[in-house]
Amino acid sequence: MITWNNLNTVPAYQELQKAAAINLAEAMAGEKGAERVGKYSVPMAAGLSYNYAGKQVDEEILKALAKLADEAQLAEKFQALYNGDVINTGEKRRVLHHMTRGQLGEAVVADGVDKRSFYVEQQEKIAELANKVHSGQITNAAGEKFTTVVQIGIGGSDLGPRAMYLALENWAKANNTFKMEARFISNVDPDDAAAVLDAIDVAHSLFVLVSKSGTTLETLTNESFVKDALARAGLDASKHMIAVTSETSPLAKSDDYLAAFFMDDYIGGRFSSTSGVGGAVLSLAFGPEVFAKFLEGAAEEDKLAAGKDMFANPAMLDALIGVYERNVLGYQNTAVLPYSQALSRFPAHLQQLDMESNGKSVNRFGEPVDYPTGPVIFGEPGTNGQHSFYQLLHQGTDIIPLQFVGFKNNQMGRDVDIQGSTSQQKLCANVVAQIVAFACGKADEDRNKNFEGGRPSSIIVGEQLTPQALGALLSHFENKVMYQGFVWNINSFDQEGVQLGKVLAKKVLAHDTEGALKAYSGLLGI
Amino acid sequence: MITWNNLNTVPAYQELQKAAAINLAEAMAGEKGAERVGKYSVPMAAGLSYNYAGKQVDEEILKALAKLADEAQLAEKFQALYNGDVINTGEKRRVLHHMTRGQLGEAVVADGVDKRSFYVEQQEKIAELANKVHSGQITNAAGEKFTTVVQIGIGGSDLGPRAMYLALENWAKANNTFKMEARFISNVDPDDAAAVLDAIDVAHSLFVLVSKSGTTLETLTNESFVKDALARAGLDASKHMIAVTSETSPLAKSDDYLAAFFMDDYIGGRFSSTSGVGGAVLSLAFGPEVFAKFLEGAAEEDKLAAGKDMFANPAMLDALIGVYERNVLGYQNTAVLPYSQALSRFPAHLQQLDMESNGKSVNRFGEPVDYPTGPVIFGEPGTNGQHSFYQLLHQGTDIIPLQFVGFKNNQMGRDVDIQGSTSQQKLCANVVAQIVAFACGKADEDRNKNFEGGRPSSIIVGEQLTPQALGALLSHFENKVMYQGFVWNINSFDQEGVQLGKVLAKKVLAHDTEGALKAYSGLLGI
Repeated sequence: MITWNNLNTVPAYQELQKAAAINLAEAMAGEKGAERVGKYSVPMAAGLSYNYAGKQVDEEILKALAKLADEAQLAEKFQALYNGDVINTGEKRRVLHHMTRGQLGEAVVADGVDKRSFYVEQQEKIAELANKVHSGQITNAAGEKFTTVVQIGIGGSDLGPRAMYLALENWAKANNTFKMEARFISNVDPDDAAAVLDAIDVAHSLFVLVSKSGTTLETLTNESFVKDALARAGLDASKHMIAVTSETSPLAKSDDYLAAFFMDDYIGGRFSSTSGVGGAVLSLAFGPEVFAKFLEGAAEEDKLAAGKDMFANPAMLDALIGVYERNVLGYQNTAVLPYSQALSRFPAHLQQLDMESNGKSVNRFGEPVDYPTGPVIFGEPGTNGQHSFYQLLHQGTDIIPLQFVGFKNNQMGRDVDIQGSTSQQKLCANVVAQIVAFACGKADEDRNKNFEGGRPSSIIVGEQLTPQALGALLSHFENKVMYQGFVWNINSFDQEGVQLGKVLAKKVLAHDTEGALKAYSGLLGI
Repeated sequence: MITWNNLNTVPAYQELQKAAAINLAEAMAGEKGAERVGKYSVPMAAGLSYNYAGKQVDEEILKALAKLADEAQLAEKFQALYNGDVINTGEKRRVLHHMTRGQLGEAVVADGVDKRSFYVEQQEKIAELANKVHSGQITNAAGEKFTTVVQIGIGGSDLGPRAMYLALENWAKANNTFKMEARFISNVDPDDAAAVLDAIDVAHSLFVLVSKSGTTLETLTNESFVKDALARAGLDASKHMIAVTSETSPLAKSDDYLAAFFMDDYIGGRFSSTSGVGGAVLSLAFGPEVFAKFLEGAAEEDKLAAGKDMFANPAMLDALIGVYERNVLGYQNTAVLPYSQALSRFPAHLQQLDMESNGKSVNRFGEPVDYPTGPVIFGEPGTNGQHSFYQLLHQGTDIIPLQFVGFKNNQMGRDVDIQGSTSQQKLCANVVAQIVAFACGKADEDRNKNFEGGRPSSIIVGEQLTPQALGALLSHFENKVMYQGFVWNINSFDQEGVQLGKVLAKKVLAHDTEGALKAYSGLLGI
């Protein structure tokens, strides 16, 4: 029997609040520090591991966190989710994105179909289309191969797929699986679509229109923008466009598209990278086999996330340490710092994933909670960030928990040896140095050069950013966010906070305004 | 006589703390709200204006802020800065980036030269080179024109110039001043350089190596990477590279470069977009005239920022409202939300500008301060952000102050009319709607659909993002950050917080490690 309770009513949370805070700089000093690095590590899928030695935890705190995980029935709640319970209570929907990459529990039948079969079928159809495009069975009207794929979508239909594309672009090129260049149009700013259209060869481009509802303002507007360009180029838009949408959307059965692939209401936009939303563009860009490996990595990591033992469950552990930082230590932000240029937009994806899921003030029953929920997420790749905002992370007046990601090897296999080390070694040396600098600090008589230390971080380490590793990484954060939502007793799967702006924007466009809305409209010339 | 005092010793700060907080939702309701929008607006340069109607201020709070500005001698401190005082006390340096675009006060002679003349001379030399490259007087060894410029730099040598390039790329194309495509190599991750090299035509590329000291690890490593590629292509690197550096750096008088342009120790990296650091790449990409207009806009805005009257000084006013939010209302973050795809990396530049400048815990005399200083800065362009992290901004448990930017017209002049409005109108309608939604909220019996409102924002509005407008925008934020540093009594112009990581990274590379440093090195395979 699952009960849904607010965090501050769970007994273990009281224990957690009473546990003495640790002195991280001391804990990480000398051989004790080395021992922590060895001990505070959990294996992940695809050869990754999650190391939390740099976090402000000790045995007592971890014990309290494990108890909290138990009392809050985290594993049971995940189980209910993947077995098809209506976990998204606000919208009265199941939450099935895990099923796009595997089946963790029971078969889930909804809308009269077995959902796992449905998602697999969509993936297979996408693979078939991609193979036909790559082999030249599907071409443009002139019988020439498509060379470019352009995703038209916003939010979850943009950030995740774009981040994944960038993450694997160089890997695919180095591994000879690169098929088509991908571009993305998202913003309703007309310059976004115009610039992408100018940069591509429209006659050899395939557009993927992604909107679950088929009613997203930005996406439909950009579709028109693209269709105008195709028409001006004398091209038949219906031979250049495919749709990824829900079966009930106006796009689903339209003749305007070469093909349509389906998702459903059980896949939230920000959790849709492993569905057709990511599947179409990634399969076209890199080949269906690469997309399948990405799903494999995610499925493997999901299995770990389903375990009951927090100490062997990296997503659960990461989630609980984050709750400790947010609710007991009072930190408001988390910085995501991947030491891999390929992950340049991964933090932007996590920003949506986390902040849209857990930026909530009411619990799943609609009652206000009286404790902080989701943090602000931001980040840039290292070493770039070191030359940017790390100053504040090291010496600012607030402590910002850090989430590092690093790989032993780069993706392209090319490097240069300068002053006795390669660039990749320099990259890795920097992330090592930062973790220790943040944790341990360094005393200096000149207070301006003094580092207090005590600034917590964790790191996910892998051999290389492969499709499997990327899938595992994505799954880790999706499940972390889910577990934090469970702990905070909120619904991580709706987003009512985006509605008011949409309603008011329509009023502005209809000139149905007064007061400040009218005055600002004047200011912007509308 | 200027005195440097901590914020909490300035009498007006006590008054500010005592002033009653305003109810923003009430203040912005009905016709009162419209009046605020009309009243709380300050003209900026290049046709921009700063509107702060959506901020949590009223006459009493503004009066206290103006008094604080006066008592903290903000205008006098800026005057001392532009007249050449050693404001960067930590590094014992003048702070002269304003002089790269104009002269606000007295002539400043340093190192035996008039600094304004020196910066103008460098700008003229860059213009001369750019014109010769564009006209084909300077070519590659085969006598062919260069088509691409690649900036090699990190931090301030990357983020600002890259953000400015992206901000003007489409404007330049639409206005027929686009000369050369620009690319950027920054990260020590070898995949960064490898991917850029694969994407360009090396034989027709000119590389701009930017490092003030001439010793930046990432930049020198990437230079080697590029030189290797040039050598493999049978090209003479010295005919493909120019340097932007200080006159005392090892790069300054080297035969390895086609030309060298100089900056000096009085221009911090994050304030260097208007120096040769931005000047070389932007003049090559868009022509020196466009770069000159960008400087004009910045110089005009600097003049406004030098005024003593806070109510007519947008940078000072913005700075003080930010201090009120940070120190009295207790907000930790600021989100920068430009409704312009061209400003996609402008928030990343501001992130460095602000967090590296004001992420400090000691005052300018090296004494710890007991109040919060610089906030965390993050942001993405709208409307993209609306479909990402705005959920937390609207309904999260923390209040995040917002800085919007919007323009009446887009840059490329192409648009599409759908359902009675253009994309540009939809874009503008959305920013209007968001400001009001954040400020006023909307009550709903369903608490999950309830919007509390009371979430403060300001907006900078302009006609179009032109080079002048971009210069004004950049100047505004540079001066805002400077003024906040003055109020907090910190040195905004050094960055000692980046040093420890560098020292430890060297130890890791030299295998001179023990304890946690050694253990993490093992984890990363070095």
